[in-house]
Amino acid sequence: MPEPRIVLTHTSHPGNIGAAARAMKTMQLASLYLVQPKSFPDPQATARATGAEELLADAVVCDSLLEAVADCEFVVGLTSRSRARSLPVFTPRQLPQFVREQRSEHSVALVFGTERTGLSNQELELCQAVCTIPTNPDFWSLNVAAAVQIVCYEWFTHITDCESPDASNVQASNGPYATTQELEDLYQHYNRVLAQIDFLDMQNPVPLMRRIRHLYGRADLTRTEANMLRGMLKQVEKFCGDI
Amino acid sequence: MPEPRIVLTHTSHPGNIGAAARAMKTMQLASLYLVQPKSFPDPQATARATGAEELLADAVVCDSLLEAVADCEFVVGLTSRSRARSLPVFTPRQLPQFVREQRSEHSVALVFGTERTGLSNQELELCQAVCTIPTNPDFWSLNVAAAVQIVCYEWFTHITDCESPDASNVQASNGPYATTQELEDLYQHYNRVLAQIDFLDMQNPVPLMRRIRHLYGRADLTRTEANMLRGMLKQVEKFCGDI
Repeated sequence: MPEPRIVLTHTSHPGNIGAAARAMKTMQLASLYLVQPKSFPDPQATARATGAEELLADAVVCDSLLEAVADCEFVVGLTSRSRARSLPVFTPRQLPQFVREQRSEHSVALVFGTERTGLSNQELELCQAVCTIPTNPDFWSLNVAAAVQIVCYEWFTHITDCESPDASNVQASNGPYATTQELEDLYQHYNRVLAQIDFLDMQNPVPLMRRIRHLYGRADLTRTEANMLRGMLKQVEKFCGDI
Repeated sequence: MPEPRIVLTHTSHPGNIGAAARAMKTMQLASLYLVQPKSFPDPQATARATGAEELLADAVVCDSLLEAVADCEFVVGLTSRSRARSLPVFTPRQLPQFVREQRSEHSVALVFGTERTGLSNQELELCQAVCTIPTNPDFWSLNVAAAVQIVCYEWFTHITDCESPDASNVQASNGPYATTQELEDLYQHYNRVLAQIDFLDMQNPVPLMRRIRHLYGRADLTRTEANMLRGMLKQVEKFCGDI
């Protein structure tokens, strides 16, 4: 069972970073990545961590979400809205179960967006699935550290429940899987080739590229498969390049 | 199913009261009692409530825990320590199930102690049961609002699960899905195009085509996606066809 990386993007209030670190530690998770935090390190973050300061000291600060998840193979975005309809949607309870059964050899990232608006569409593009916490339909505005707490709690209780002697993992191994960086390289390659053969409407390339992302995101590509697809694209470039 | 009252005793940091109110509202709970809060009302409580201010306005402030739970019939104390050995101990997941089955006509209070030391022994005397959140054995110090969030989340998901037994599948619907025939047509089309651009080793095309089948079979293609892929293949044929 992989230990997920918790990624907080564009966090506005440093206190929430500290509270998230504390929430993680209570649930035995330790790997924290921060994408362009507004203020970090910050005394408010340290104050709210109360006992989990070492997670802040070890936190990796990144310039972009891509940098934070480049080496991950299963990236899950937390979102309260059903904006990403073609991505698989998990509850926090279903997610660790799914990872155990179908992504147990992956490195996993759980991504939490900024306080006011959550994950941007661009950030969601990097996700292979979304996780939605069940909430009051009339007031779904969870604090980001509270959301981290719930997701980490579900992860921890799942592991605790499964660590009974008869829990077994019979999943066949397909890996190694393509990393986020390898997938991004593949999508960029698609983008170039489709533009070259006039398939991509350059006025509006986003919907098509998003479909391609969702399709291959769901498919959980191995590195071999990603390389095969890139090989096809190279061959198309070679055949069509001189036209 | 009774709606539990959330009771916070001797809360030191008013911000935690606001965060607890917000946590409650996200999980559709509204009844908040405060026993001798250090400072209330307080701007920090209001700031952290962000959208749940009416719970603070309606909160009942009491001089003692007894006053706060006097009219309740089932009082549960949250504690991380097993100090109350003779009381039944529930996890946050077991608790709503137990209440539904055995205390459904009771009025229920869930009691959270002060930040540093939790519930006093005297306060535990008023409880008929305790609830312990599973945590890291080496770091069990949950923030009080985070504890409220987890307990209310479990209450809410229990109610939601019970009220809509068929709603357990939250997978986004993408369909209609490609039929077997449409998939076969897609694979044949791939075969033709890959042969045309000399990517397919015609002496031994089976392994590559099998990989393609496995990849798209796993992805569970929709009809729209299958059509998109065939559109790309047609465009490659058009560009490369005359070579």
